[in-house]
Amino acid sequence: MNIPKISYPRIVIIGGGFAGVALAKKLSKQEVQVVLLDKHNYHTFQPLLYQVSTGGLEPDSIAYPIRKILKDFPNFHFRLAEVNEIDTTCNTIKTNIGELKFDYLVVASGSKTNYFGNSEIEKHSMAMKTIPQSLDLRSLILENFEEALLTSDLNERIALMNFVIVGGGPTGVELAGALAEIKKGILPKDYPDLDTRLAQINIIQSGDCILKGMSENASAKAEEFLEKLGVHVWKNVRVTNYDGKTVTTNSDLTFQTATVVWAAGVQGASIKGLQAEEYITRGNRLLVNNHNQIKGFEHIFAIGDIACMATEDFPNGLPMMAQPAIQQGQQLGDNILKLIENKPMKPFVYKDKGAMATVGRNKAVVDLKNIKFQGVFAWYVWMFIHLFFLIGFRNRMVVFVNWVYNYIRFDREARLIIRPFKKKFKS
Amino acid sequence: MNIPKISYPRIVIIGGGFAGVALAKKLSKQEVQVVLLDKHNYHTFQPLLYQVSTGGLEPDSIAYPIRKILKDFPNFHFRLAEVNEIDTTCNTIKTNIGELKFDYLVVASGSKTNYFGNSEIEKHSMAMKTIPQSLDLRSLILENFEEALLTSDLNERIALMNFVIVGGGPTGVELAGALAEIKKGILPKDYPDLDTRLAQINIIQSGDCILKGMSENASAKAEEFLEKLGVHVWKNVRVTNYDGKTVTTNSDLTFQTATVVWAAGVQGASIKGLQAEEYITRGNRLLVNNHNQIKGFEHIFAIGDIACMATEDFPNGLPMMAQPAIQQGQQLGDNILKLIENKPMKPFVYKDKGAMATVGRNKAVVDLKNIKFQGVFAWYVWMFIHLFFLIGFRNRMVVFVNWVYNYIRFDREARLIIRPFKKKFKS
Repeated sequence: MNIPKISYPRIVIIGGGFAGVALAKKLSKQEVQVVLLDKHNYHTFQPLLYQVSTGGLEPDSIAYPIRKILKDFPNFHFRLAEVNEIDTTCNTIKTNIGELKFDYLVVASGSKTNYFGNSEIEKHSMAMKTIPQSLDLRSLILENFEEALLTSDLNERIALMNFVIVGGGPTGVELAGALAEIKKGILPKDYPDLDTRLAQINIIQSGDCILKGMSENASAKAEEFLEKLGVHVWKNVRVTNYDGKTVTTNSDLTFQTATVVWAAGVQGASIKGLQAEEYITRGNRLLVNNHNQIKGFEHIFAIGDIACMATEDFPNGLPMMAQPAIQQGQQLGDNILKLIENKPMKPFVYKDKGAMATVGRNKAVVDLKNIKFQGVFAWYVWMFIHLFFLIGFRNRMVVFVNWVYNYIRFDREARLIIRPFKKKFKS
Repeated sequence: MNIPKISYPRIVIIGGGFAGVALAKKLSKQEVQVVLLDKHNYHTFQPLLYQVSTGGLEPDSIAYPIRKILKDFPNFHFRLAEVNEIDTTCNTIKTNIGELKFDYLVVASGSKTNYFGNSEIEKHSMAMKTIPQSLDLRSLILENFEEALLTSDLNERIALMNFVIVGGGPTGVELAGALAEIKKGILPKDYPDLDTRLAQINIIQSGDCILKGMSENASAKAEEFLEKLGVHVWKNVRVTNYDGKTVTTNSDLTFQTATVVWAAGVQGASIKGLQAEEYITRGNRLLVNNHNQIKGFEHIFAIGDIACMATEDFPNGLPMMAQPAIQQGQQLGDNILKLIENKPMKPFVYKDKGAMATVGRNKAVVDLKNIKFQGVFAWYVWMFIHLFFLIGFRNRMVVFVNWVYNYIRFDREARLIIRPFKKKFKS
């Protein structure tokens, strides 16, 4: 893979998400060589993907070039690569651009959408885990309205304007809120010759509340906010199939729709060669101890979404969110240096900073450790936190300009079909 | 096509570029029905496409939703459609979404890249006329550097870092300047383990000067600026072929390169049914009189790049630039209303506002009617004019933020491979 051999130990990190980047930053300017591999040449700020899908933000302003994050680090090497296999006996990874030996390996490959084995749902529904996926969804939403204008079949028109979101977690809730705002503020002006009141937004949640994992108050308020925005929230309903036209469920309920967004589950993006029964666990995550070591290895670690670290508060593993990933990445940086120096590592302790979700304009729910609140102030907190955690001053400025503009003008100008998703519109 | 029939005359406009949008705006709030068709749901600010290709601007900030431009106009209908044929005997257009009758038809379909019949060049080289094309070029440039890191074959590495731009017009010159700035300011930091001094930027121009059509001073200064930036300017050289590896020319000169940008010519984007010999002219443009009427028709017009209007100063037709397009669109708006009222139309007189091009950081050449200047001040004028003509307040703000940031930090953060261009990098 053309990585120079130097006398420092080589740490290979798979994945440039929150965990991988936090770790690489910690290791900068230390006496180690770091090789970071990712399928993309940029870091994605996933919490704002739903705003890309709904035309509120440019994709480029929630992405950041990985090479730039670590440009001042002398022994840092980035490679655009996909890892196919890990050989734990030879301490080698095999990628689409060749093989590489490692002294320490950190798997930070994150998570991917979980369709629970239903290939028909996988084929016909949209996911929102990457920027290209989010742009595809943006195109599809707009294409469906263009198509709704053309048909004289009322049922088809209604199906084209019916959005079904499966999964009532933060992704589903935030997307539903944004779609509801579009329905109210943009569609009637953009499509004066279409009865956009027919547009529907449905969230289907298999459990008995949305935003599971947040407080009861947050869940109830978020539901209230959504209903006020005209979103239909279906609880205790499990989707059984979607054939591209009809969503079927475990009850009599069905939905005729041209757009299903699957936000009902994620699973670890596991890699061949690291799938032994003794450490692979529920949802394809890798069981780690509190030093993030994978069972049976001293020098192979997992951090972030792919790692399953059980704690007293989270016996099934820490939540698959940015905070555990960042904290694990930072601490593993210190721990690997300790391991190299043969000093004892420090056990990881998760500092739960809470969770939040926004529900359309002016509304959010925030659970912090000691205080939980909902409404306008929560919305300001949500915006401030998201701006703060975005990487890059330019990204923050551009996102800020967009938010101020969108807020004042009730608008979302990135409603562009740049790469058509439907064959029909490809030119 | 599901367009309501009303008592007002129906004006169909093909194309939402500078010409089509200027015309539609003029017709807003008049007693006419306007149907605007475009392959994209957005207007593209083409003069800044080269900044998208070179990571200086987000694509979304030089695009603007067409529906939004005309949202307050009651009898305006936009349709996302490709026009396949015009039937001038039945006054009907045939599109991929159905047929439509017109009372007045305005062809504003613009221009497309002209490969002068060389299909091998067309297959292997990159164009930069649309946002998707510009994004493909952005991906390719970055992918080539990623690939250059991987190869141990020095010749291949040099070819991957060799950029050949064919055509010394404003597009070629501005792209070359931006690439030269990237070579100087970004590559050494992003690719510390690659000898980026090997990167080359070549412009090949068949005539004996670059920026043909501008003043001699502008042309000479632009060349000087480019040479200072390390760009090789090859004049009086005509490219004869490019097979994906080697550019051959009409002399001994050849170039081994993985990237050829073809900016050597444009032609009218003509449409089937409007190609009669009596009005189709050099470069597939449609010959129009000074009312923009196509020869032989009272009610069928052409404006912008596709229209060839000969004047005393421009006997081969007005230049294919934004200004003639905007001015023709605006005046045709008035003239169509006069025609409807049976009043005499006003002949079009082109107000030549000059031309300009930027050549990297701090340098531009500007030819105005009464004054021509080059250098830093020209660069400020260039920026101001481009910001001013961009559609949309948000776009202006975002472009401004990017420019200030890029200027202060010597940076271009949109160096993202969002949709890989090479198969190798597609995941």
